[in-house]
Amino acid sequence: MAHDHDVTGGFVQRHRETLERALAAIHQRNHWSAYPESPSPRVYGESAAADGEAAFRARLGAPWPGQTPGASGSVLSERSPYGLELGISYPRLSAIGLDELLEAAQRGMREWRDAGPQVRVAVCQEVLARLHARVFELAHAVQHTSGQAFVMAFQAGGAHALDRALEALAYGFDEMTRHPATAVWEKPGRGEPLRMAKTFTPVPRGVALVVGCNTFPTWNSWPGLFASLVCGNPVVVKPHPRAVLPLAMTVEACREVLAEAGFDADLVTLAAEADGDRLAADLAVRPEVRLVDFTGSSAFGTWLEQHATQAVVSTEKSGVNTVVIDSTSDFAGMCSNLAFSLALYTGQMCTAPQNLYVPETGIQTDEGHKSFDDVAAGIGTALHGLLGEDKRAVEVLGAVVSDDVLARLEAALPRGRVLVDSTAVAHPVWPQARVRTPLLLGLSIGDVEVYGQECFGPVSYLIATPSTADSLAAFVRTSLTAGAMTAAVHATSAEVLADARAAALDAGVALSENLTGGVFVNQSAAFSDFHGTGGNPAATASYTDAAFVASRFRIVQSRRPV
Amino acid sequence: MAHDHDVTGGFVQRHRETLERALAAIHQRNHWSAYPESPSPRVYGESAAADGEAAFRARLGAPWPGQTPGASGSVLSERSPYGLELGISYPRLSAIGLDELLEAAQRGMREWRDAGPQVRVAVCQEVLARLHARVFELAHAVQHTSGQAFVMAFQAGGAHALDRALEALAYGFDEMTRHPATAVWEKPGRGEPLRMAKTFTPVPRGVALVVGCNTFPTWNSWPGLFASLVCGNPVVVKPHPRAVLPLAMTVEACREVLAEAGFDADLVTLAAEADGDRLAADLAVRPEVRLVDFTGSSAFGTWLEQHATQAVVSTEKSGVNTVVIDSTSDFAGMCSNLAFSLALYTGQMCTAPQNLYVPETGIQTDEGHKSFDDVAAGIGTALHGLLGEDKRAVEVLGAVVSDDVLARLEAALPRGRVLVDSTAVAHPVWPQARVRTPLLLGLSIGDVEVYGQECFGPVSYLIATPSTADSLAAFVRTSLTAGAMTAAVHATSAEVLADARAAALDAGVALSENLTGGVFVNQSAAFSDFHGTGGNPAATASYTDAAFVASRFRIVQSRRPV
Repeated sequence: MAHDHDVTGGFVQRHRETLERALAAIHQRNHWSAYPESPSPRVYGESAAADGEAAFRARLGAPWPGQTPGASGSVLSERSPYGLELGISYPRLSAIGLDELLEAAQRGMREWRDAGPQVRVAVCQEVLARLHARVFELAHAVQHTSGQAFVMAFQAGGAHALDRALEALAYGFDEMTRHPATAVWEKPGRGEPLRMAKTFTPVPRGVALVVGCNTFPTWNSWPGLFASLVCGNPVVVKPHPRAVLPLAMTVEACREVLAEAGFDADLVTLAAEADGDRLAADLAVRPEVRLVDFTGSSAFGTWLEQHATQAVVSTEKSGVNTVVIDSTSDFAGMCSNLAFSLALYTGQMCTAPQNLYVPETGIQTDEGHKSFDDVAAGIGTALHGLLGEDKRAVEVLGAVVSDDVLARLEAALPRGRVLVDSTAVAHPVWPQARVRTPLLLGLSIGDVEVYGQECFGPVSYLIATPSTADSLAAFVRTSLTAGAMTAAVHATSAEVLADARAAALDAGVALSENLTGGVFVNQSAAFSDFHGTGGNPAATASYTDAAFVASRFRIVQSRRPV
Repeated sequence: MAHDHDVTGGFVQRHRETLERALAAIHQRNHWSAYPESPSPRVYGESAAADGEAAFRARLGAPWPGQTPGASGSVLSERSPYGLELGISYPRLSAIGLDELLEAAQRGMREWRDAGPQVRVAVCQEVLARLHARVFELAHAVQHTSGQAFVMAFQAGGAHALDRALEALAYGFDEMTRHPATAVWEKPGRGEPLRMAKTFTPVPRGVALVVGCNTFPTWNSWPGLFASLVCGNPVVVKPHPRAVLPLAMTVEACREVLAEAGFDADLVTLAAEADGDRLAADLAVRPEVRLVDFTGSSAFGTWLEQHATQAVVSTEKSGVNTVVIDSTSDFAGMCSNLAFSLALYTGQMCTAPQNLYVPETGIQTDEGHKSFDDVAAGIGTALHGLLGEDKRAVEVLGAVVSDDVLARLEAALPRGRVLVDSTAVAHPVWPQARVRTPLLLGLSIGDVEVYGQECFGPVSYLIATPSTADSLAAFVRTSLTAGAMTAAVHATSAEVLADARAAALDAGVALSENLTGGVFVNQSAAFSDFHGTGGNPAATASYTDAAFVASRFRIVQSRRPV
């Protein structure tokens, strides 16, 4: 079966300019975005929001229309953190269906390989275009699985996730085409030179497995998914049982475009499971599976790294993110910025700060000296300003994603001195949503058994240290033992900032300095910020750099005398 | 301790042009070489050969002068396949010394990291220049540990190995500098744009372990060694107990240049062990070790892949290399070319052909139809022509490297019909050298239990198949089960060549077509041919592509408002 060159030629034409712009962006790492982040009708049109919501609602209470080879029966595992009845049942895959699934996944692999990088990237770009056309619908799907507030779901789950996916496509394409497809080798000698014509072909590794998470079903899954696919690998998508819909929509878009272009739709499949099936573990160690991308718990991520040794495994696991507070020239701005970072999506982000170190003697600021308790009060005031009104608060906080988060919040309470208490907020639209403001606990540097591990959710610690040097040392220590995705420092002295940068290099953590305005430590911008480093236990990979894509294909050459 | 900027500045200056040329070469993959492969006095000067031999002989019968942190006692484990008494004892490292070794290895890591890619690549290039200045001495060291003939040792162990090392440096440097060191991100908004200055720093992963092999102590070890070092990682070099000297010289050159430049010499260390100590296994699973490069047996390579899960593991293991013979327009050229490939270094190459498939009905050639036995006779005649005279023969064959090779040769004999027998050749200079010509056994397609696994050494099989399609299918099958580093095809029809190329893509093996002249399937040219693909069980990596280097460092960013 040959793919439809008219169709793929059209995709190539349509997306060429965007690809070129994306390729330029990944080499410059300055600001660029292909997908507008504002859900405003001025950007997306007057009817886009209503149409998207209607499309989302039309999905509810019905079996998912897509098929998965090897599936039997169905599974209904989602539960909106906002209390909306979703009621979508998906084809259920279990261990018994894996032979059929993996056979089907590989069926179209050769044709997909032989289509080459240019066609593959255009097909993938067309998938992104289709997803972008459904971005409002996607935002509702992300909101009602992750608990993110709508605008955040639109941005982090839609526009920004599309940017990250395009970034992964650009890196994959760049990597596959950095060598010429052909070369002539001519070795001078005493007589006739030796001449060989050579062909270099990127070939896929094998089946790729993407294991999604509950909180960022698209943003965290798309880079691996599209990086693997553009490099020629079939992709099996195993969503989190409570966040299936956004990835089911993703798989649907992939299959739709693949089929239109004349490729085998089973190159991308949805492997939904019931909670507790451990399907990802069964899949990950299959010999056919040569790539695994995972976001989730450290326990399972580490298990994958240790057991799926036939595959290249990229994991993003838990971590302990640090803010070192030494001094500031904008105390109010610092407190506001920190408050937003702590509150955003109830701290349910792998990038949210947890450990805030402050010298026990206090800090110098533009408002004069501030004691440890003054700093706590400043953050408390900022949180109150941000979250004092329920209607505004829920747009920042979103909803608590699971019982586990609430249980951790309750368990944390007695572990320190309550500096800012967590309160329940009534959601004006979704009465069943559980909404909580952040808890800030006071600790001292000796309480490492508390702050030395991740407490995922709205729990953070203000930790008194003997000095900023001790704060930096604790930062490096916890990053190397418990991992870290982000770090921030507030300091007015060049020396302290230099020390912080050096500590961040030692810790292998990205550093944000003196954020007091509209940029937050928990946000990373596609095409510019590297999300994660792979240099500490929180993650083995970064979104997105060359290392993230380079091992997703191999170069096979042929050569012949000419 | 700061490094000496005058010294490193001089290195940068001296090697800039070579680096630029190497960077161009890796993007073009056409012919380039930085190190002349001919040991002729016209190239290297009248006294170079004698000086090199004298330097080599001065090393013999004495304790190695270099130190290794954590070593205790010494080990004398080498034995020249030519019978020359080497008698060099090296500091012995055993499990008890690993804490001290790894602590010392990491001591200079930060300074090496902070020196940046440009200084690191220049320091590494200076090491290559020092090794090149000793290339005759190195050639003797390689000859008397591997058993390669002198000219081959000079080329494969000297000039070509230097090219591969430089290629690895170029890829590492290219990869570390493909993103700008700094960028300004400016996000337009309704009010003032958000502006952030960003810094991107490549940081090393951790200690790198290089495990050398007996047959190609430099060629196979240098790419990993120099790729890791240029990316900022300290390197522990664990040579094969019977091929220590070439790597001891390498480590010596590294330490000499590092110390001259003001870096910690322990960034590169020699970890010599007694045969059977399994030091590599102890080292490979240490948490400090984050990179492992290994060449050797499939058993230990697979063990490393499965157990050193804290590290990025690159392995080159055993494989079964194929030649598919369908037809030829140059029967004599084909037979000569094959004969050389089988004879070179007694087949003790990971790239030497083992399985030669011929249709049982024979093949069409420029000399008319040739039966299966005619093909065997043609190869036999060519082998006789190449090896008939002892003095010339030993320059092609070198010496048998170990008892294991002889044992395998003997064991192979009864497994097939002897088409060309192996004979012993008396070495005119080294009477103790064991020199053997290649054995060619006749098999049929059903004898997969014989030809389906590697028989490392001077054993190859001429295998009768029902058709070329069956030959290609067998090629794909054995490549995917037993691995393969090389493949070749002889065919006059475009269709068969296309089928062979497709089969090579499926098998993940580099293909050489219709080699009848001075290029051989077992040779790959640095900067042009990718050695291995990582796409089948013979190897997880290729020398050298981006995937080989991209995971040897991580990018750590910092950002601040401007």
